[in-house]
Amino acid sequence: MLRNDTLDQWDRENLFHPSTHLAQHARGEAPSRIVETGSGVYIEDRNGTKLLDAFAGLYCVNVGYGRSEISDAIAEQAKKLAYYHSYVGHGTEASITLSKMILDRAPANMSKVYFGLGGSDANETNIKLVWYYNNILGRPEKKKIISRWRGYHGSGLMTGSLTGLELFHKKFDLPLAQVLHTEAPYYFRRPDTAMSEADFVAHCAAELEAMIEREGPETIAAFIGEPALGTGGLVPPPQGYWEAIQPILKKHDILLIADEVVTGFGRLGSMFGSEHYNIEADIITIAKGLTSAYAPLSGSIVSDKVWKILEQGTDENGPIGHGWTYSAHPIGAAAGIANLELVDSLGLVKNATAMGTYMKAALQDALGDHPNVGDIRGEGLLMAVELVEDRSARTFFDPARKIGPTLAGELLKHGVISRAMPQGDILGFAPPLCINQAEIDTVVRATKAAIDAVLPD
Amino acid sequence: MLRNDTLDQWDRENLFHPSTHLAQHARGEAPSRIVETGSGVYIEDRNGTKLLDAFAGLYCVNVGYGRSEISDAIAEQAKKLAYYHSYVGHGTEASITLSKMILDRAPANMSKVYFGLGGSDANETNIKLVWYYNNILGRPEKKKIISRWRGYHGSGLMTGSLTGLELFHKKFDLPLAQVLHTEAPYYFRRPDTAMSEADFVAHCAAELEAMIEREGPETIAAFIGEPALGTGGLVPPPQGYWEAIQPILKKHDILLIADEVVTGFGRLGSMFGSEHYNIEADIITIAKGLTSAYAPLSGSIVSDKVWKILEQGTDENGPIGHGWTYSAHPIGAAAGIANLELVDSLGLVKNATAMGTYMKAALQDALGDHPNVGDIRGEGLLMAVELVEDRSARTFFDPARKIGPTLAGELLKHGVISRAMPQGDILGFAPPLCINQAEIDTVVRATKAAIDAVLPD
Repeated sequence: MLRNDTLDQWDRENLFHPSTHLAQHARGEAPSRIVETGSGVYIEDRNGTKLLDAFAGLYCVNVGYGRSEISDAIAEQAKKLAYYHSYVGHGTEASITLSKMILDRAPANMSKVYFGLGGSDANETNIKLVWYYNNILGRPEKKKIISRWRGYHGSGLMTGSLTGLELFHKKFDLPLAQVLHTEAPYYFRRPDTAMSEADFVAHCAAELEAMIEREGPETIAAFIGEPALGTGGLVPPPQGYWEAIQPILKKHDILLIADEVVTGFGRLGSMFGSEHYNIEADIITIAKGLTSAYAPLSGSIVSDKVWKILEQGTDENGPIGHGWTYSAHPIGAAAGIANLELVDSLGLVKNATAMGTYMKAALQDALGDHPNVGDIRGEGLLMAVELVEDRSARTFFDPARKIGPTLAGELLKHGVISRAMPQGDILGFAPPLCINQAEIDTVVRATKAAIDAVLPD
Repeated sequence: MLRNDTLDQWDRENLFHPSTHLAQHARGEAPSRIVETGSGVYIEDRNGTKLLDAFAGLYCVNVGYGRSEISDAIAEQAKKLAYYHSYVGHGTEASITLSKMILDRAPANMSKVYFGLGGSDANETNIKLVWYYNNILGRPEKKKIISRWRGYHGSGLMTGSLTGLELFHKKFDLPLAQVLHTEAPYYFRRPDTAMSEADFVAHCAAELEAMIEREGPETIAAFIGEPALGTGGLVPPPQGYWEAIQPILKKHDILLIADEVVTGFGRLGSMFGSEHYNIEADIITIAKGLTSAYAPLSGSIVSDKVWKILEQGTDENGPIGHGWTYSAHPIGAAAGIANLELVDSLGLVKNATAMGTYMKAALQDALGDHPNVGDIRGEGLLMAVELVEDRSARTFFDPARKIGPTLAGELLKHGVISRAMPQGDILGFAPPLCINQAEIDTVVRATKAAIDAVLPD
């Protein structure tokens, strides 16, 4: 067996980690962790440290670690047929079956699913489809995409542009010119604390409408948004937000892309966030929860309305010039089938509602009175505790103090993985949907201990 | 078991296939094929049809189908740990080990590997890295990318722009403005048939240099090219091409990205195309042959020169804002390790040279005199037969006659999968690297029969 110190050296010499301080990692100044195995909500590293993963990897291991139903399905598919492509009408039993299972679960107006690998490439596909759609409809000027500040839609050139977070733009010349950002649906950070939730929704709608008028509706192709904000802060929308936004998009013939990479398949306590908030999307992005990350797989679910024009496009122009070699990869498809079956058989969508309610109440009980806890929010098992310097004045900490990362580090000492979200001191939780009350109690106790240690009352 | 007609219906109702005529497929007018299993160079579909896959999927199943060494490695990894992320210094034994195996095989000036999922997203990463690199070096204007007509680098918005084929641009508003295309290194299609190979190389170099001068070298960040053209026609470069191109790039401080998605890990009869043609790249793109497609995995190998600036960038700006949830996915990494071990233990790199030589000679013997065979070319097991209407005048067929696709369809009747490449009547072969002489004989016989049937002498 390889020694830990050998692996550690190989790591620093050879592996370029994402979202990492590359120099500190290569110099051995930053901590690293080599993960070995996992079971349920726990992972274990090569040093034998066992941790409760209250962020489910990157909010993706929704069914929990170590599910033999999925690993057996992967093993069986790998043995039978690890790969064949899906170009020019080719398929496999797994990819076809999964496409039907997805459409069976998706909103009624959805028609077909294109399979990709991850959320970023699925949103890349979506923008290509939106541009193609408007070209086929003879509207070559209708191409701009409106996203929201604090939205997260990937970290490619286009998808990182859609993302409304500084970390993903800085030094990369993003966002690209075709992308515009409007107000984040983030009530706690409303521009004026005197605004009611209804005022704030009206403000978001007015900002969007003003942007559309300013740019010209004939130049705006689509609006993209997560049903509830993910990486930008883990924020459920203010009451009435989607009801206010959708009519504006409809009025100006702007497509709506619901990015459900985080919210799809149970995270909010419903199969889709679109269903949860009565969103009628034209395209839905899926990834993470589709396979619970057991194998890479994403998807773009397109509606009847969009599909009809794609058909017209290929009738007029021949085969569509879009495809990844690994679209509809059999291993991912097999993992997806087993995963969606588990989501059903374990009742995880319901459990997310029940445990989410329990967890929010427990966090409220434990931390609701802490003077530096500004907001405790969540929907289903997507939850955040936002820290502030002064609660009544809603003043934020100096980012240089790194309160969020310090808290996440402190939680680790208590054996719990949380996530410090970017742009703010926001402690995020998105555990596997199979989490139980005792495990939630552990997370809440650790959170209280960490906050008390870092920010003594 | 699901009936074939049920699956067929589900397919047409739910699955959006890449590079497909969507309307014909949905209406059931185009053939479809549901692939069931595979072994060696053969696949078998659900109707019991067995085919010799002389294109290795999409030139990716390099070790052949049904290798238990890889499916066992996938099964074991799935059971032990199907997923953990690689953000912020996290890793797994598999991803770290594979990164070392890749660097052990890569050219000496290479430093680190960033793992993605497929070739498109790896090239997307590369462009982000190139832009970041020049921003860190304080050269914000140095951002344009030069690619070649007929290059293939993906089908995203940026990567489809890098691709120099009409099918991937049309109706998608590509290429994006930051991308320029120069002459394809395609001697058979040289602008003037009177040109010698040396003349043509000088012409390619002069075109490149003129483009750089015209745009201003201070605006050009990188040049991207496949060591030998892939999807654009399966064309080894003319003698002396890379020797002529590289000094021009060096002179103007332009980075060289070698896209080795097709050529990496043995296809040309060498571990890397860079080694094969003495290319000193700054970044190398890898995918397909890295895992033989048993699981999705790609990579961007960055050189010491680039890595040093990335380190400087994170020292100055903090963690790099780039990452995919599924970067360094354990299943892909486990597949990659087992695959590279097989490439070695089966001696596939050597076999590619030997069988490539044999196959080219056999095609030459069988078809060299056919009046419609304009060119038989190849390097290792990347091979093409290009058809022309008139050999001495080098006139091409009217594309409307679809000679290429018709030939590929005829080969299928003989039980052999080839590929009709886009933009021309080019029959492509890129079989698994484990192919033997008897199997090659089958391919060559089928090819001769198909050409004789479609284009009787």
